[in-house]
Formats: sequence, structure tokens, C-alpha cells
Amino acid sequence: MEKKAGTLIVFSGDLDKIMASFIIATGAAASGMKVNMFFTFWGLKLLQQEGAKTKGVGWMKKMFSFMVKPGPDKRPISKLNMMGMGASMMKKIMKKSNMPDLKSMLTMAHDLGVKMTACSTSMGVLGIKKDTLIPEVTNVAGVTSFLADANESSFTLFI
Amino acid sequence: MEKKAGTLIVFSGDLDKIMASFIIATGAAASGMKVNMFFTFWGLKLLQQEGAKTKGVGWMKKMFSFMVKPGPDKRPISKLNMMGMGASMMKKIMKKSNMPDLKSMLTMAHDLGVKMTACSTSMGVLGIKKDTLIPEVTNVAGVTSFLADANESSFTLFI
Amino acid sequence: MEKKAGTLIVFSGDLDKIMASFIIATGAAASGMKVNMFFTFWGLKLLQQEGAKTKGVGWMKKMFSFMVKPGPDKRPISKLNMMGMGASMMKKIMKKSNMPDLKSMLTMAHDLGVKMTACSTSMGVLGIKKDTLIPEVTNVAGVTSFLADANESSFTLFI
Repeated sequence: MEKKAGTLIVFSGDLDKIMASFIIATGAAASGMKVNMFFTFWGLKLLQQEGAKTKGVGWMKKMFSFMVKPGPDKRPISKLNMMGMGASMMKKIMKKSNMPDLKSMLTMAHDLGVKMTACSTSMGVLGIKKDTLIPEVTNVAGVTSFLADANESSFTLFI
Repeated sequence: MEKKAGTLIVFSGDLDKIMASFIIATGAAASGMKVNMFFTFWGLKLLQQEGAKTKGVGWMKKMFSFMVKPGPDKRPISKLNMMGMGASMMKKIMKKSNMPDLKSMLTMAHDLGVKMTACSTSMGVLGIKKDTLIPEVTNVAGVTSFLADANESSFTLFI
Repeated sequence: MEKKAGTLIVFSGDLDKIMASFIIATGAAASGMKVNMFFTFWGLKLLQQEGAKTKGVGWMKKMFSFMVKPGPDKRPISKLNMMGMGASMMKKIMKKSNMPDLKSMLTMAHDLGVKMTACSTSMGVLGIKKDTLIPEVTNVAGVTSFLADANESSFTLFI
């Protein structure tokens, strides 16, 4: 029988939504499914190295980059973020509940063979260079790559 | 012929998005489809009894619970909520348009046989106890249960 | 072989999310897929003619309409909108990156044969009249129409 597959578009850069996507992705991969995560727009901020500089891009892209910080530790939450206080509380709650943090989830997903693609179109728009991405990123590709994966999947989610 | 199925992850706790999910869920169930709703994170707040207390959980979980009120009547809207004024206007508009309110939609979904699952992982993180959930909840389960449903569905949505 | 299909529910009225949905929709249509876009709730604001008046509806619907402006040029972004400043920067960035604007994307989708349906239920709730919709709208229909499309699609997204 063919191996089932699932595809997730991670559009959001929010801690709570990214957590949800990794819980689904790692759960599916652990159960033997082929899993594709396609990171686009704000979701790309997760895949950027912390402190990544935006060299050679216009001031507007720099400003966007300044206002939405890169890296798993800098993710806000979608509600009650309150300048990061909510996100920080959420991370403490997760720790107390023995949940892995985002960095560990990224590693776990990578180790389980989850394909993590960075959307090339959004990288251009947001001024994100390939060499500022974390090593867990397996592909840099556009919408055609997503479509191929989605058409082979038993479910596709936009998160 | 096999009965078609649809699966919805209700992540959002916002009135407008929850309404959308119930319109889809009840519409699908009424047309003879098998429908699974998997409530996670902020979406769980809908399934909590109004005035539910958070006993035996840390102060951080209590504070989250205080700031995001439980129950169908306390849902904000995702835009223009303005401390509840927007949500209250939205509810009046729905009433004038002869739309059922969230409580009626919950009952309707239940009567149509929609499976409503509360996500056990998020319950732990948000400090939500099983005995504070409304009786319409049919299951308490984790991501594996969602995956089983999604793999049998003709569509799966993350709302 | 049967032509593959994809269905997108565009619930959001935010520039960044709408852009994402059109990039997916036009990409899929260009690759030969049948594509259905079902616009509901805030997503309907994209399909309204700019400056569309809300005649014959109550003051609450008028107020909602006033606060969420119609038309592709008036879309805010989901993060950092800052009274439109963020949206305006985003549009300049897109232009510099040689990305088409929303109006061009709408035309492109239409020319590629993407089916664009306006949700009749939401139109009632938000006080949007059929004659204020842009000509690219191919259908006005309810959830049953969406379900029929979703059940024939290889992927369905809620955006």
C-alpha cells in the first residue's frame, strides 16, 4: 500500500500556530506518514537564524525584518502577546507541561524526515537570503513544489 | 459507496471563525457526510462550561484562563472586537439575519452526529479539566485521533 | 485521467493572506488544475467594488462596512498594519519585487478560469448586495456549493 502523506503550509509566524503545526507534523511522521511542511511569509521567520542580518535589501524590508524578529525563540503568540509577555508565559507553561520547545520540535521534525521547504517567492518579498536559513531547511522552492506535494497528500492544511 | 467525510481542526477561539466552522460542519453533516471537529488551543474555550474554574493549576494557566473567557457567549471576533463591542454587534446582526447563535449551532452539530473531540494535549497546556467541558464533547484525544480522521476525509481544514 | 482540482476558502480579508491564496490559486490553475475559490466573511470585502455603498441595511452593518473598507486596494495586512502604513509598505515591496498587485492577481485568476464564488450566507450577514460585487465573481452560493467542490478536490484550504 502506498504510504500516506500530509502537507502543511505554515504561513503564520505565531508560536501557538507553529506549535500546532509541529505537533501535527511530528505526530504524522512518527506514525509513518510522509510529511511536507511548506513555510511561507511570516512562517519563514521561524527558519531564519537568530540575529540574521538583512544585507543588501531596501530599508522597507529591513524595517519589516526588524519588527518581526527571526528565530524560534522570538515567536509571538497570536492572542494576548502583550509585547512578548504572553509568549514568554506560554513557553513557561509548555515547559511545566513537559512539552518540547520550538527548537526541539524543529530538530525532532528533521530527525523524523519531515521535508521542510522555504517558499522562494516569500523570501524575495521579505528580503530573506538563503544563507541566513537554519540547516534543518531541506528545500527552497515555489508554489509548484507545494502543489505537487498537496496533490499526493491525504490532507493539506493552511496554518 | 463509502460515506464521504470531512475533518475540521478548530484552533481559533474567535466567534467569526467558529461560526464558519459550524456552518461547514452542520452543512456537511446535513448532506450525509461524516464530520469530525477537533478542537484545539483557543478553540477549546468554546467547549468549556461558562464560568468554569481552573482549580489545581498554576497561576499562569489561571491568568490565561481569566483573559480568554470560556463558553460560546464569550467568544470575541477576530477583527474589530473592541473589548467585546464588535462581537456583541456581530451577534445582534446574526440574530437579525435569522442566523442561529453559537449555542444553537453546537446543539445542531451534536444532533446531526458531528463528532466533537477536545484535544488532550492542549487541555494540559491550558489547564482545562475534562469535567469542565460541555456535554456535547464526544471525545478527548490527541493528534493520533485527528490523523486517523483526516486520512479518511475528502477534505481537512485548519480554522 | 481526471483533471485534478483544488478548493480554497478565503475567509480572511488581509492583504498577505489573500496574496497567498491567489499565488496558490493561479499557480494551480496555470498547471492545469481546476481551481475553486470560495470567498466568505472578511474575504468578501475583496470582491466588493471600491466605494460600494451599503444601502438598505441597518446601521450596524453600515458601521462594519465602514470599518472594513471594500476593494483590493483597501486590504490591511494581518500583522504590523499600523493604520495602513504596513499594508502600504508591503505593496511597495511587492512592486519592487516585481510581484503583481491584488487587482492584477484577480484578473489573472479570472483569465485562468478560476471559479470565484461569493458566499451568500455571509453576504446576508455583512449586508453585501450582489450588484456591488466586481464582475470577476462567477457565482453566488452557499456552503453546499463549497462542499461539492471540496469533495472533488485533491486539497482544500481555509485561509
